[in-house]
Amino acid sequence: MDGRFLIAGERIATARRFQGCNPAAGVAIEGEFHVSGPDHVDRACAAADAAFDAFRETSPQARADFLEAVASHIEAIGEPLVERAMQETGLPRARLEGERARTTGQLRLFAQVLRAGRWAGVVIDSPLPARQPLPRSDLRQRRIAVGPVAVFGASNFPLAFSVAGGDTATALAAGCPVVVKAHPAHPGTSLLVAGAIDMAIAACGLPRGIFSIVQGPGNDLGAALVRHPAIKAVGFTGSRNGGLALVAIAQARPEPIPVYAEMSSVNPVILLPGALAERAEALGTAFVGSLTMGSGQFCTNPGLVFGVEGADLDRFVAAASAALAEAQPQVMLTQAIHVAFERGVETLSAGAALVGRGRAPDGCNRGQAALFTTDADAVIANPELVHEVFGAASLVVRARDLDQIARVLRTLEGQLTATLHLGEGDAEPARALLPILERKAGRILANGWPTGVEVAHAMVHGGPWPATSDPRSTSVGSAAIERFLRPVCYQDLPDALLPDAIRDGNPLGLPRLVDGELTR
Amino acid sequence: MDGRFLIAGERIATARRFQGCNPAAGVAIEGEFHVSGPDHVDRACAAADAAFDAFRETSPQARADFLEAVASHIEAIGEPLVERAMQETGLPRARLEGERARTTGQLRLFAQVLRAGRWAGVVIDSPLPARQPLPRSDLRQRRIAVGPVAVFGASNFPLAFSVAGGDTATALAAGCPVVVKAHPAHPGTSLLVAGAIDMAIAACGLPRGIFSIVQGPGNDLGAALVRHPAIKAVGFTGSRNGGLALVAIAQARPEPIPVYAEMSSVNPVILLPGALAERAEALGTAFVGSLTMGSGQFCTNPGLVFGVEGADLDRFVAAASAALAEAQPQVMLTQAIHVAFERGVETLSAGAALVGRGRAPDGCNRGQAALFTTDADAVIANPELVHEVFGAASLVVRARDLDQIARVLRTLEGQLTATLHLGEGDAEPARALLPILERKAGRILANGWPTGVEVAHAMVHGGPWPATSDPRSTSVGSAAIERFLRPVCYQDLPDALLPDAIRDGNPLGLPRLVDGELTR
Repeated sequence: MDGRFLIAGERIATARRFQGCNPAAGVAIEGEFHVSGPDHVDRACAAADAAFDAFRETSPQARADFLEAVASHIEAIGEPLVERAMQETGLPRARLEGERARTTGQLRLFAQVLRAGRWAGVVIDSPLPARQPLPRSDLRQRRIAVGPVAVFGASNFPLAFSVAGGDTATALAAGCPVVVKAHPAHPGTSLLVAGAIDMAIAACGLPRGIFSIVQGPGNDLGAALVRHPAIKAVGFTGSRNGGLALVAIAQARPEPIPVYAEMSSVNPVILLPGALAERAEALGTAFVGSLTMGSGQFCTNPGLVFGVEGADLDRFVAAASAALAEAQPQVMLTQAIHVAFERGVETLSAGAALVGRGRAPDGCNRGQAALFTTDADAVIANPELVHEVFGAASLVVRARDLDQIARVLRTLEGQLTATLHLGEGDAEPARALLPILERKAGRILANGWPTGVEVAHAMVHGGPWPATSDPRSTSVGSAAIERFLRPVCYQDLPDALLPDAIRDGNPLGLPRLVDGELTR
Repeated sequence: MDGRFLIAGERIATARRFQGCNPAAGVAIEGEFHVSGPDHVDRACAAADAAFDAFRETSPQARADFLEAVASHIEAIGEPLVERAMQETGLPRARLEGERARTTGQLRLFAQVLRAGRWAGVVIDSPLPARQPLPRSDLRQRRIAVGPVAVFGASNFPLAFSVAGGDTATALAAGCPVVVKAHPAHPGTSLLVAGAIDMAIAACGLPRGIFSIVQGPGNDLGAALVRHPAIKAVGFTGSRNGGLALVAIAQARPEPIPVYAEMSSVNPVILLPGALAERAEALGTAFVGSLTMGSGQFCTNPGLVFGVEGADLDRFVAAASAALAEAQPQVMLTQAIHVAFERGVETLSAGAALVGRGRAPDGCNRGQAALFTTDADAVIANPELVHEVFGAASLVVRARDLDQIARVLRTLEGQLTATLHLGEGDAEPARALLPILERKAGRILANGWPTGVEVAHAMVHGGPWPATSDPRSTSVGSAAIERFLRPVCYQDLPDALLPDAIRDGNPLGLPRLVDGELTR
């Protein structure tokens, strides 16, 4: 395992080292990783800036080919990538193989997005030389890459939201060079993927500076990266504290920049009376399946459930508690995450009644799932109860009636998702709740569970603060590319000086809005 | 003149009053205006919040009709609106009549934008129930209004960027209620327009809470408005200090919100050698026309000009100085703006050589245009020289060669516009400068002048910080509506619960991207 990090194609060794840790065994993994310093951040950012103008003007076809090459090079690593990721994260093989497929699928989706061309946002208003009282100029708008982007690897998706994950794929698709701050929980996985990206760059003949990766424990490195003047946007998936810190740093720069931080969500699930009457037990079992998947380490984990108190809700809780009692303890990603989970469970214990617990841990860093209930008044009085506990912990809120559910929902912070379970007679109460949920969440589900975020054109993995730091954006799905683009208008430029995207004759074959009508 | 402000259709009187001022005469204008307090901000925001859910779900057709009704009611005020605006701003009749046409034109453009329907951003991914290993859900994305919007009236566009200006038109088009903080420099104009909006609301049977206006001198009122939890976005056009203050307040909220502030730009103009050789004198004259228009009180005023030193640039400066000597002093908008202009001219005088001045003032608050030159080294050494001076002041920078122009351009802050004047042989240097200009500006012009911002689909009136606080946006043109929308995804909702925009059968007839293909 080569533990050197990569700056613009160059492997870098330093005197300081750190090791990966196997959370399943609680021991360090053999092999050392070189720690990057602020000077390396400087070099990576300077290389990204130097490569920016050339890279952003590569053809959409060239960038699509490149993204597909990255996907192929990741696949070509083969078994060592899955094994290393298993060691570093404690996640099972099937999950990591699925995540690898999601990662390469994302890269290939953005190749399609580039070829389809809507991303370029071409809008042309023809000149009106005879208009009175003044002629209208020739106006052409396209979107260009914002500049070098800092991407932070996420602990809970060592592939799909890390080095070549969604943020990197979208930034590169947009034409932005990327400097990754690797998550220290999976350094080997990160460097294997970084190597694949670098090989794809070389194979495609692109400037090496479009990708660098820095690594190390602690927060200084990430802070230096966000502060760097060459960096023009940030992608982050992680904790609320981490996200808020990066937003503060980005805002304090002489030139503030956008941070796309996906931070915190409890993903309320509302069990409407008809649904509970029809299938309380089945809902309880399915809920536990969603809650405990991946040890609950998903930003869309269902951490808050609402129902009207009564026998049907009792049946749901009983079924969920029974299913939970069979839930195997699963390795959590890091010791720190496990400790934070246990602390979160303690906080919930202090304010709500424990009604179910998963099987006892059979080793270190195992998360023992936990289910609590309380009433709606308690939640209104103690908002601490509805803060995210990262892991398989959830709170069932018993309300007096649907109005009280609506009242509590109105007090919630922004969420990534909100879910309605519907049965007979539930359409009317659902219709009353929807406007509240639309204000609160980026995605609204019916009769499903929020875990599982499809990579698709229509997906929104986003939502009002503090679910994300920018509710106008999504970090999953094809619209994610818009985070790293900005519009530029060209007025009366001679055709020979215009970029290909907006030249006469449409040499790139992009879809265009010409005088208000879509053409190609 | 009714000096009471308007909250949700109700005229409000208070004990504190202020008066408008006629800057041409430096005297107060007859009639008193009631000063709003923080309690009125509360009431206006509560009314906006209460009206939000109903308003955002009105049909696009209903909102289009409403915007057109606002335009008609503004026109129906007739002569009193123009006369009041002339009194309060010192701007001439023709300009204000043109601005009124721009204002009503904007409102009608957004009616068209609503009817065309692309604003709704409908994207549908069909379910794939048989997909392996997991089926794909039914995913439908639309964009919804972000919530009540705070709009700050601008001093320099009492109609087009004020009470019913671009920010208000786009927010209302998006389905956002609006609370306006009127600019105290034109209180009567503001209330006349506010009355027109309120009459249009009543005529269209919309909730009165979708529009309120508060007014008064000082900054507290605006700060309270941006702090209010019901407000979800802010539109502002004005000074850099004002914009930065609002951004800081918005970021310090428990739930930070986006501020779309259009703040500061010197709009560099580059005179390439071929252009100067061909038409130095004509360029000099045309430049002064753009510089002195409206007493230079435009955010796109050409405050910085670059040329390679030599006889051709000398001819340009001589022609500009000669034209400037004939420039009539024009009334500036307020005494404060005139004082700041004079201070800015002093700052430039301290660091650059005065080479031209307009005619001497013949009354109070008249701006006396000023032209300076310096060399490129001085600009690099003293960045103060390239800060915006609001008014008809500009600096011609003499560079040793084109490389030095490129070097200085790279040091500039973000700009609304950048302009190239081209002649024979200039294509190559222009091609070298374009990547620099694309990084710096939202709009790039050739052979024109940046004043005059067309309201069109392809327009970008925006740009990197500090030209604006959000370079992904424009405040002029149809894309401005995107500032006040956010995407929401609906997963597996029964058709009967879906909003019309994304229901089966497309009842609103909106353009849709279905499985990656555009349909209607």
